[in-house]
Amino acid sequence: EIVAAVEARLQALAAPVPRDLAGRRILVTSGPTHEPIDPVRYIANRSSGKQGHAVAAALAARGAEVVLVSGPVQEADPPGVRVIPVESARDMLAACEAALPVDAAVFTAAVADWRVESAAGQKIKKSGAPPVLALAENPDILATISHHAQRPRLVVGFAAETENVVEAARAKRQRKGCDWIVANDVSPATGTFGGGQNEVHLISDAGDEHWPKADKAAIAARLAARIAAALQPPAAPQVAP
Amino acid sequence: EIVAAVEARLQALAAPVPRDLAGRRILVTSGPTHEPIDPVRYIANRSSGKQGHAVAAALAARGAEVVLVSGPVQEADPPGVRVIPVESARDMLAACEAALPVDAAVFTAAVADWRVESAAGQKIKKSGAPPVLALAENPDILATISHHAQRPRLVVGFAAETENVVEAARAKRQRKGCDWIVANDVSPATGTFGGGQNEVHLISDAGDEHWPKADKAAIAARLAARIAAALQPPAAPQVAP
Repeated sequence: EIVAAVEARLQALAAPVPRDLAGRRILVTSGPTHEPIDPVRYIANRSSGKQGHAVAAALAARGAEVVLVSGPVQEADPPGVRVIPVESARDMLAACEAALPVDAAVFTAAVADWRVESAAGQKIKKSGAPPVLALAENPDILATISHHAQRPRLVVGFAAETENVVEAARAKRQRKGCDWIVANDVSPATGTFGGGQNEVHLISDAGDEHWPKADKAAIAARLAARIAAALQPPAAPQVAP
Repeated sequence: EIVAAVEARLQALAAPVPRDLAGRRILVTSGPTHEPIDPVRYIANRSSGKQGHAVAAALAARGAEVVLVSGPVQEADPPGVRVIPVESARDMLAACEAALPVDAAVFTAAVADWRVESAAGQKIKKSGAPPVLALAENPDILATISHHAQRPRLVVGFAAETENVVEAARAKRQRKGCDWIVANDVSPATGTFGGGQNEVHLISDAGDEHWPKADKAAIAARLAARIAAALQPPAAPQVAP
């Protein structure tokens, strides 16, 4: 496995990246979402946007026209990518739907599953008993786009798990109706959230592939190559009846 | 007011900063706190740490030995300041108590009033009804240090409000037992959280002073000068009975 990884890396350094996604339009999401509690407080998650931004950059490097819908992150905008900044899951879904049609969509963002049911218009005062935050389910962006009238040819989801990573991801793929799931372990001990490296499983109807730990840019490059292969041969041009 | 602000700015540019806090030890807190919901989700707030870090830098520029206890921020460590990074309010209180004794303490951080009562050890699954987050009150760092056996000679709190800013801050000063409150309006329209400028009221037993909108560094410099004045003359050396 180590030898294979080193060989892949050397090959990547040696070979120029092919422009095999030229003419393809691809949607990528990245980062966390922020769900307001009141004007100053919100619910967040530890996603840094590093992996999603790397995926957008890798797809653009192969010539794709990339729309990157990103939650609040510290990452710089990848070169040649149109970035649409959003905060909440509902904002993110609206931006994704507005980006359709696309040839492929890669949902790397760690979207909040829940929002606060009734966000307050003013800062909640610290008086009396602590509040209880009733949560409401957010729209499921991956499932929505997977079942959309304008469904992309290839829909890729990410799964961030802290236990039973592969089984959970297989179940997620079935449940959401997407084509592939890239599953990673985001337990604090792995350093995946916020860190520079990732170790993933690619789950598709062809089975489960393990990709050993590598820089997020290398994981992104490998995923971009697979996406380019999956989108070949070109879709037949739409012919008016 | 505009003329006064311009004059103050020109004076600041012309005069070297006096080293009148040499030999003083000052605690500053900055940034938000993050309160875990589970290993990947947390409750946060929009504090950027810009004002707190500017206060630490301004005090250090006057020669103070500054301990800066900071929640997660993107700001660079101010030069000549010892930075102690923390995440939660409970971590922040422990770091503040460990920093005592100090001559003065400036509590600029936007500390979460509440934490999640029972943070989960594994990522909470999205299955069944959305969870309800019962919150528990966090320790009150400003009140705790204001009533501490090793209370600093000068305790300064910040108040971040979105309505009735001055009245709320006066009440906060009484309730917490601190000497001064620096009150600011953090309504989203003001751009205070995350922005480069601030407009504050300094509330003390001498009354209420309005400081017009200025760079956070200028507000910090003005506050540092006031702290230096308040710590003059030097405390008499402790003599054993």
